Amino acid sequence: MSMHAYRSHTCAELNKSHAGQTVRLSGWVHRVRDHGGVLFVDLRDHYGVTQILADSDSPAFATIEKLKAETVIRIDGRVKARDEALVNPKIPTGEIEVYVTDIEVLGPAEELPLPVFGEPDYPEETRLTYRFLDLRRDSLHRKMMLRSRVIKSMRDRMWNAGFTEFQTPIITASSPEGARDFLVPSRLHPGKFYALPQAPQQFKQLIMVAGFDRYFQIAPCFRDEDPRADRSPTDFYQLDVEMSFVTQDDVLSAVQPVIQGVFEEFAEGRRVDTEWPRISYADSLLWYGTDKPDLRNPIRMQRVSEHFRGSGFAIFAKLLENEGTEIRAIPAPGGGSRKFCDRMNAFAQREGLPGMGYIFWREAEGGSGIEAAGPIAKNIGPERTEAIRAQLGLGVGDAVFFLGGRPDQFEAVAGRARMEIGRELGLIDEDTFRFAWIVDFPMYEKDPETGKIDFSHNPFSMPQGGLEALSGDPLKVLGYQYDLACNGYEILSGAIRNHKLEIMFKAFEIAGYSREEVEKRFGGMVKAFKYGAPPHGGCAAGIDRIVMLLARTSNIREVIMFPMNQRAEDLLLGAPSEPTNEQLRELGLRIVPKE
Amino acid sequence: MSMHAYRSHTCAELNKSHAGQTVRLSGWVHRVRDHGGVLFVDLRDHYGVTQILADSDSPAFATIEKLKAETVIRIDGRVKARDEALVNPKIPTGEIEVYVTDIEVLGPAEELPLPVFGEPDYPEETRLTYRFLDLRRDSLHRKMMLRSRVIKSMRDRMWNAGFTEFQTPIITASSPEGARDFLVPSRLHPGKFYALPQAPQQFKQLIMVAGFDRYFQIAPCFRDEDPRADRSPTDFYQLDVEMSFVTQDDVLSAVQPVIQGVFEEFAEGRRVDTEWPRISYADSLLWYGTDKPDLRNPIRMQRVSEHFRGSGFAIFAKLLENEGTEIRAIPAPGGGSRKFCDRMNAFAQREGLPGMGYIFWREAEGGSGIEAAGPIAKNIGPERTEAIRAQLGLGVGDAVFFLGGRPDQFEAVAGRARMEIGRELGLIDEDTFRFAWIVDFPMYEKDPETGKIDFSHNPFSMPQGGLEALSGDPLKVLGYQYDLACNGYEILSGAIRNHKLEIMFKAFEIAGYSREEVEKRFGGMVKAFKYGAPPHGGCAAGIDRIVMLLARTSNIREVIMFPMNQRAEDLLLGAPSEPTNEQLRELGLRIVPKE
Repeated sequence: MSMHAYRSHTCAELNKSHAGQTVRLSGWVHRVRDHGGVLFVDLRDHYGVTQILADSDSPAFATIEKLKAETVIRIDGRVKARDEALVNPKIPTGEIEVYVTDIEVLGPAEELPLPVFGEPDYPEETRLTYRFLDLRRDSLHRKMMLRSRVIKSMRDRMWNAGFTEFQTPIITASSPEGARDFLVPSRLHPGKFYALPQAPQQFKQLIMVAGFDRYFQIAPCFRDEDPRADRSPTDFYQLDVEMSFVTQDDVLSAVQPVIQGVFEEFAEGRRVDTEWPRISYADSLLWYGTDKPDLRNPIRMQRVSEHFRGSGFAIFAKLLENEGTEIRAIPAPGGGSRKFCDRMNAFAQREGLPGMGYIFWREAEGGSGIEAAGPIAKNIGPERTEAIRAQLGLGVGDAVFFLGGRPDQFEAVAGRARMEIGRELGLIDEDTFRFAWIVDFPMYEKDPETGKIDFSHNPFSMPQGGLEALSGDPLKVLGYQYDLACNGYEILSGAIRNHKLEIMFKAFEIAGYSREEVEKRFGGMVKAFKYGAPPHGGCAAGIDRIVMLLARTSNIREVIMFPMNQRAEDLLLGAPSEPTNEQLRELGLRIVPKE
Repeated sequence: MSMHAYRSHTCAELNKSHAGQTVRLSGWVHRVRDHGGVLFVDLRDHYGVTQILADSDSPAFATIEKLKAETVIRIDGRVKARDEALVNPKIPTGEIEVYVTDIEVLGPAEELPLPVFGEPDYPEETRLTYRFLDLRRDSLHRKMMLRSRVIKSMRDRMWNAGFTEFQTPIITASSPEGARDFLVPSRLHPGKFYALPQAPQQFKQLIMVAGFDRYFQIAPCFRDEDPRADRSPTDFYQLDVEMSFVTQDDVLSAVQPVIQGVFEEFAEGRRVDTEWPRISYADSLLWYGTDKPDLRNPIRMQRVSEHFRGSGFAIFAKLLENEGTEIRAIPAPGGGSRKFCDRMNAFAQREGLPGMGYIFWREAEGGSGIEAAGPIAKNIGPERTEAIRAQLGLGVGDAVFFLGGRPDQFEAVAGRARMEIGRELGLIDEDTFRFAWIVDFPMYEKDPETGKIDFSHNPFSMPQGGLEALSGDPLKVLGYQYDLACNGYEILSGAIRNHKLEIMFKAFEIAGYSREEVEKRFGGMVKAFKYGAPPHGGCAAGIDRIVMLLARTSNIREVIMFPMNQRAEDLLLGAPSEPTNEQLRELGLRIVPKE
């Protein structure tokens, strides 16, 4: 029998049914242990680990004795079943071990700058410089395989739902997504530049105008943004989707089973919520202080302004005399102790607020019923205090925190306080994925300083109510625009597009763009919409972020095979680097010396 | 019953089982015909075409009368079965038509710059400027769907074969592939540049070193090359594959079922060869004059130098006195007429040769057997002529053409002549896909002018015979390197990689690169190979080219959704374009004015 040059089996394949067979294995030396004249090696490959061993009679003994960790070897040997007591049920090959009769070093290894066995903590710069070693660690290996399977699952689900994947250009024109483009100088047209797409937004809309019905793409996207822990500084991937002849409901119904299915497939015991509430943007800010609420936290904020208007709590009463101000309450069921309330107050101060007023309720002394505690309760008196308690449905042992002012100035902190309270009180079910559609985004916002009206999100979304709505108060116009939040992260965003030129020109006019400017900046789209554009809409889901959630990590570099560091450098291959003079000459460019 | 806003059915869905139903359809006005007071509209969507109609009583009549081609409309109507005689069996909806009761214009259309109906021939610049209209044509729509399905099929087959897809970086370091990089200036590191990958070659090798076993990727690749009809001037896609612990045989056996399966799936009646011969590079050049032979053509060239050495055909006899020269014969079974031979001779002259000598055989006058004709036969005499005939196995009605000189100077023309002869004689089975593995590529070649030894193909391939082979004559060293040819195109290329540093340094030394230079230019790879590299190899298949073959086109722009034109410009969105001063300032660049 002639054997394969490198292996008859993988390192995860042998079990006691192979006992007695002569086998050939290849892999990395994961660990060597010397048990008094017998050398045990954990031999590792992509699939698993097999224990091989050699005693001093083995012709391989001398070689194994000198093996450095992570050397690649090929061995021949005989499979022996382990004694019952020595079976390792944790690995598929735990029933056997292999007695080495021959060994060959296929790839020698020097002393490691970054150990693989044991996965000790190492600085990220070292890990990225020796990424090929870092990736050998089981934890990272698993995350990469997870990412790959998640993307396959998305893709299969999209095909099964009748979508077709098309590739859109990567070296292309600048896209109006609002972030900064990466540019690519053209050699054939010196002085001119291509851009890498921030998203295939224009192309997917053109695909709809071109008559294809249900498009998707696992699409690389490029934004030259300043680095952040949960963002790749160069390229990232999105599940990009677009559909023709659809309403907002159609898009949401098409996407939910795909995303939900992916989460269920890779939940690993975590619960995946199947009821996805639709929450208006306005309600989401009111209830959760953010448009990406974490619904694992059951706390919902409420407006309680009326209870403070003209009350004895002068700070709030006075504040409410200014237009556009409100008082909001964060109920804290189970938070009814001064110690807890003070801790949360301190949290608010760390977040830059003067503090958070509170009331908490306790058993009245002598057991004669409920009693409200805290300075605010004293200031506003028992009636108002009781009305607040009743509105929020709180009781003995609970607390409530108050924030007041112009909502846009305290909402974000309120949202973080809500999460802090939820975490502190153990209200958050960490083993659940909870989703919410956020809908009815406003089309416009007013710059508080200049008073100028501008688009608040995507200018290409269809305004609800169409042309008619655009002739009223722009700040009341909502768009057919939606986000999907999961556990406090935005994982998807989309819209029904504005495919009607007259509505588009009007929408841009409100934001101060003339027809000529729109035609100049978005000429390709304007041209396309002149020759029969179908109603269409879609969305894009952030793949890296979804994988991060599934992989239980908040570091995006843990789910990317070869990530840049946070200074957007590739430490392994060395990028970016200085161009040659020849390259610059061909591109017609000169580097401006640093000032 | 409340109906969907845009459609109850697609335009390919209705048949006589729907007769009597009220339906809603949306789509493009493909064609309007006026049959004396009755208006027929072919309504088209992604899925198909449905005939709708309105007579003068219909409330939609006036609207339909004014409809421009390619307007997007929504109609309500009643399905009626067609009379038997009027059934159109060519389309799925041919059994019915829909009587319009209501119509809405969803997307108006101006006069078209490029008609969709009838698909008349239009200049490519117009087609690219209005790509969204061009793509609505059935022929292009089908090609895009074909491309998408081919890629899906490849991907599914790779997963089923145990490969895992990983994404490698797109904004990255320069890759040593030999072509020109596209550069991306870094904003965070002014004066430095990233490169777009010419191929994920280094990354896939690093993935193997990182311990993953069977990688693939449908990978975008970027080469700044001068445009050509069958090449995209910017990005193109390859099926990128790499495997660990494999020999050349393993790679070939893993890839063949995938490629063959894809061709079989989309052959549409064409025959797909299942026997893929392995032909050495040397034999391929000898037999076919190229390393991408078209095996649909049965003609094989042969060496016939001995028959001319010292013969009466002075040109060849003299030529053979120079070292390194040969005479090769192109047999042309069925080409035995002076007219045909003269035509082929003229072809060779057009290709820049002095001409192709020939012999052809005819029935001897009086029917007394075979007779050789042509000046060469006279010059070399009957014995040599007969020996040539016998060697080539030719007979009455056949011909043979001769080319002589240094093979590298006539091989390419000989290859083209072989194809021309095959085509002219009808020897090529156009309805077949025939494959050949080309193996045993030489590692090195000698520059005929400078005498310098250089790599002839990929410097990272493993030399056959390893270190030992490298100490002999470099021009005799073959690499574990292989191509796959299909119908005269190279559709795949690959190699077993050189994973041993000492062999790599030696291989580069022969080509004149010092150890230091290798470490400098390929530092990441050298580093990786120091810490346990497995034997590995793989390949990359050209997806665009495979789709072109399947789609029966030789224009790559016919299988790309939004291609650049041949000057590497996007005529629809306008790229490349001039950067803003702000962009240049951020990147620390200045444009050098044209001389």
